[in-house]
Amino acid sequence: MNILVINCGSSSLKFQVIDTASETMLAKGLCERIGIDGSLTYENTVKKSGKITREVEIPNHKVGIQLVLNELTDPENGVISSLEEIGAVGHRVVHGGEKFAKPVIINDEVIEAIRECSDLAPLHNPANLTGIEACRSVMPGTPMVAVFDTAFHQTMPSKAYMYAIPLRYYENYKIRKYGFHGTSHDFVSSEAARVVGKPIEDLKIIVCHLGNGSSVSAVKGGKCVDTSMGLTPLAGLIMGTRSGDIDPAIVEYIAQKDNVSVSDVLRILQKESGVFGLSGGLSSDFRDLWKGEEEGNKNARLALEAFAYSVAKYIGAYAAAMNGVDVICFTAGVGENDAQVRAMIGEYLGYLGTAIDPEANKVHGELREISTKDSKVKMFVLPTNEELAIARQTLSLVEQA
Amino acid sequence: MNILVINCGSSSLKFQVIDTASETMLAKGLCERIGIDGSLTYENTVKKSGKITREVEIPNHKVGIQLVLNELTDPENGVISSLEEIGAVGHRVVHGGEKFAKPVIINDEVIEAIRECSDLAPLHNPANLTGIEACRSVMPGTPMVAVFDTAFHQTMPSKAYMYAIPLRYYENYKIRKYGFHGTSHDFVSSEAARVVGKPIEDLKIIVCHLGNGSSVSAVKGGKCVDTSMGLTPLAGLIMGTRSGDIDPAIVEYIAQKDNVSVSDVLRILQKESGVFGLSGGLSSDFRDLWKGEEEGNKNARLALEAFAYSVAKYIGAYAAAMNGVDVICFTAGVGENDAQVRAMIGEYLGYLGTAIDPEANKVHGELREISTKDSKVKMFVLPTNEELAIARQTLSLVEQA
Repeated sequence: MNILVINCGSSSLKFQVIDTASETMLAKGLCERIGIDGSLTYENTVKKSGKITREVEIPNHKVGIQLVLNELTDPENGVISSLEEIGAVGHRVVHGGEKFAKPVIINDEVIEAIRECSDLAPLHNPANLTGIEACRSVMPGTPMVAVFDTAFHQTMPSKAYMYAIPLRYYENYKIRKYGFHGTSHDFVSSEAARVVGKPIEDLKIIVCHLGNGSSVSAVKGGKCVDTSMGLTPLAGLIMGTRSGDIDPAIVEYIAQKDNVSVSDVLRILQKESGVFGLSGGLSSDFRDLWKGEEEGNKNARLALEAFAYSVAKYIGAYAAAMNGVDVICFTAGVGENDAQVRAMIGEYLGYLGTAIDPEANKVHGELREISTKDSKVKMFVLPTNEELAIARQTLSLVEQA
Repeated sequence: MNILVINCGSSSLKFQVIDTASETMLAKGLCERIGIDGSLTYENTVKKSGKITREVEIPNHKVGIQLVLNELTDPENGVISSLEEIGAVGHRVVHGGEKFAKPVIINDEVIEAIRECSDLAPLHNPANLTGIEACRSVMPGTPMVAVFDTAFHQTMPSKAYMYAIPLRYYENYKIRKYGFHGTSHDFVSSEAARVVGKPIEDLKIIVCHLGNGSSVSAVKGGKCVDTSMGLTPLAGLIMGTRSGDIDPAIVEYIAQKDNVSVSDVLRILQKESGVFGLSGGLSSDFRDLWKGEEEGNKNARLALEAFAYSVAKYIGAYAAAMNGVDVICFTAGVGENDAQVRAMIGEYLGYLGTAIDPEANKVHGELREISTKDSKVKMFVLPTNEELAIARQTLSLVEQA
């Protein structure tokens, strides 16, 4: 079955078409600046005829979807001859709250429930809904599935997801740890079990999803037992521009010192912090940081060291959370491509009976075991593929229906 | 030498007199409600004649000190015959900022520097200074030493103490991780080395100071390399009434939901959170929580589980930070006395090659090895003694002078 996978932002719409029989991507692209002016990028990834970019008016997501479908059915560069060849649409939805612990077929009730979760993800869920509604109006007969970024983490026990704040905040406002990147953590941990050839039920896996946004999760017996992001994606690891965990008193301290609002402080913690802030505003891109480090920039060095240290501490914490670890996976942009950062993280982990093999570690964006042969804990670079994961889950639900 | 150890709060003054030759406490006591009405408790701990409590007007700390000295030289219950028998005074000072990495003899310059750190500890440093100045005016000829709660942590590397926020906050406001309970972490880690009979230079020690306020530190080769409290004592572990680490976005979320100020939220995170908040307001006292748990209170159970889990995760993180751990110590009220909590924490640590011996773990407030004989990582209950540590450090400085 061909599945269209959609990931909608407030002014953007990313898509892929995946043939689930062969698990190959047929096409991918992106609508940007929706509602502002508009731009469409499209690529037939089978023909490899390169990217097509069109500057075109995209007043809303519905027009965006229509333009995408036009490209997909284009006689020259398309990958299907008619819309009937799309068997289902899988939508990435950021926040499923406590309502959604797995993907669901979208109907009016589900849409309402996603809307109810908007409070917890005010920037994301409304945008995801816009994409869902645009698709429904353009492709009314095609089954659609919502796949939630938070769902995989719903198996966490209460000792992991409850904050030590007055209980009424959970009861009244549902303030708790949700976690994000769930589709990625699910995909990578399942793949890891497949690669080591053991039932996932018998494995303790730590997944390090290190990108511009970064998170770590502890997966025991195939179930997430803890993850580093929190109520929002601000918490946990140091990220590209996000602070990760800090003393919460810093929010008040900065607000008072700078005489700014708490919202201003939060914007700074989200947009101007992380390795970007720590490097003195040099960059949130690790390639720039390494370049800076080579040129002797001490702040760049500090940002890289602090990042690797924060990942190592989470790996250590989650080894304790699971009373052990069998497999550690590195995935996403930085995790798959930055061998130096992986090496820095590995330096901390000798006490677990594991070490990174420097030769094996020379790998970018492909599956490889990077730990030494005699390592007790296996380490892998294992590329994530959230779109494929969404397509698989969509297929599974549509076939059941 | 007899040393008077002073710990001043804004309306209180705790004291001990310690004979450093035998390292025994001669007397201890407390002035309370200073500036309100006043009450003095005094105990000759050699004679063991019991506590004396006097309701007496204490308009300020200077009067308080004078009353303490009267008790100490009292012909009946005193422990010295004249003030000359007090060789030095050791003052606990909460915040030494980046200025003080060790104790110092107090002079006018030091007082000024402590005052400059008040910005970082607005509730504590001014109170500590009040005590110092009261003592100086009453005992002008006696040498005095300031011992800082933050000093032991000043050896942390920048990757551990820098927050991933814009660099200007460190440069302009000195926002960084300082850590607290330093005198305790220093004392307990030194004692641990003595007890295992190895040079501290060769040891990796994790100290779990678990009381109403709680913190964990990683001590490598005798130097603190990381600790769980942060800019303020709010960060890190779940505590009696403090939240510890939470997603910093929660501060804004609660402020908006409840339409309260950021200061209101911080007060809640400090005074109404921790195991108290998580247990639905049942208690911040672990004995009450265990009682609740036995009676089937699920929130009490959750609070205890979440607390133990947060300690276990920090132990795991610091094992990674040091690439291993040789000794884990439990100290302070909960750490020394709550065998059940220690057992819960121990449950996570089998992967380190260690286990708690249930028989040995039946210990309250005294030094004992609680790990099984064949444990690779040794675990101890090791009572802290911050007053003795202050007396030792005061003696050492006064002898050098």
